[in-house]
Amino acid sequence: MRILLVGAGGTLGGAVRAALSGRGHEVIGVGRTGGDLIADVTDPEAVAGLYAQAGPLDAVAVTAGDAVFKPLGDLTADDFAATFRGKALSQLELVRQGASHVAGTGSFTLVSGVLSEEPIAAGAAASAANGAVEAFVRAAAIELPPQRINAVSPTVVEESLPAYGPFFLGMEAVPVSRVATAYVRSIEGAQTGQIYRVR
Amino acid sequence: MRILLVGAGGTLGGAVRAALSGRGHEVIGVGRTGGDLIADVTDPEAVAGLYAQAGPLDAVAVTAGDAVFKPLGDLTADDFAATFRGKALSQLELVRQGASHVAGTGSFTLVSGVLSEEPIAAGAAASAANGAVEAFVRAAAIELPPQRINAVSPTVVEESLPAYGPFFLGMEAVPVSRVATAYVRSIEGAQTGQIYRVR
Repeated sequence: MRILLVGAGGTLGGAVRAALSGRGHEVIGVGRTGGDLIADVTDPEAVAGLYAQAGPLDAVAVTAGDAVFKPLGDLTADDFAATFRGKALSQLELVRQGASHVAGTGSFTLVSGVLSEEPIAAGAAASAANGAVEAFVRAAAIELPPQRINAVSPTVVEESLPAYGPFFLGMEAVPVSRVATAYVRSIEGAQTGQIYRVR
Repeated sequence: MRILLVGAGGTLGGAVRAALSGRGHEVIGVGRTGGDLIADVTDPEAVAGLYAQAGPLDAVAVTAGDAVFKPLGDLTADDFAATFRGKALSQLELVRQGASHVAGTGSFTLVSGVLSEEPIAAGAAASAANGAVEAFVRAAAIELPPQRINAVSPTVVEESLPAYGPFFLGMEAVPVSRVATAYVRSIEGAQTGQIYRVR
């Protein structure tokens, strides 16, 4: 398959790229500052330009999403809006516009995260954005067929513990390779409307 | 208790107002165009003005939220952003700012809806916003104590079937009085982080 991978330069993106390439897929990596294609997917016009450049696609997978982590009392209205843009609206836009660019039998795989169900201190904005992504996946799954859509919801990955470990106190980390396997399941499998939780 | 009720002029708001008043509470109704206080809560500055006018509060309850209903292929980036503002960010802002205005033992009761779990055609934006509200409630509940926060998630109410019935095909409607009872439970009860589903 020919797969657009948004966030290919990150820890998770690199693992998903390796897993998909290792299974014979052609991966077109997208990053904000580097990659096969460069785009800031929080800008709907940049998403349009991205699909125009990408050519025919069998799948879109997203491993990128920015969220602001602050205690609830310190989060501003702008922090909430930025987190929705960075983690939720960006992914919804990739689906909305992508539906006419991806093959009829193609798929979308979005990224949510454990915080939609298991909150942590300073994570309220991220929790809200993840909840939006998961509910959107369930909803889009009844309007997209024959195209499919799923989300992968990882907990913190071992490779990111130096950066995020202090937020995820006492929560078991998983190797990023396990999360990448869930992307393979979403892309090569036949289910739709699923949230693949990797815990 | 002294309770700020946002959306008091709507079908649900009227029922919640009647239920709370009937139990001896003082209800300050807020509407966009009428009510005891007038405010457009999608504007963070208007929320600040609202709390400045409202005086001391024991609880905040929200029964208002605007969402755009369109087939997935017709929803624009602006429709998604407007739905997040109208149904999710507005409520998050009422909590964020309200935490310093509501009594230490007070509570927030937000509104989500059945579409976070059970999608309907043309409801993808509303589903996403509802999912955001529910995940936010779970997250805020670990940072707000001793203040509490819950959401009420109604299915379509019988009184709204003339307007919304065609969207909720084959889904059982509930009397709005049952939804109002869930608000009483949230406000007078002791739980936090709960999603009270009225189905």
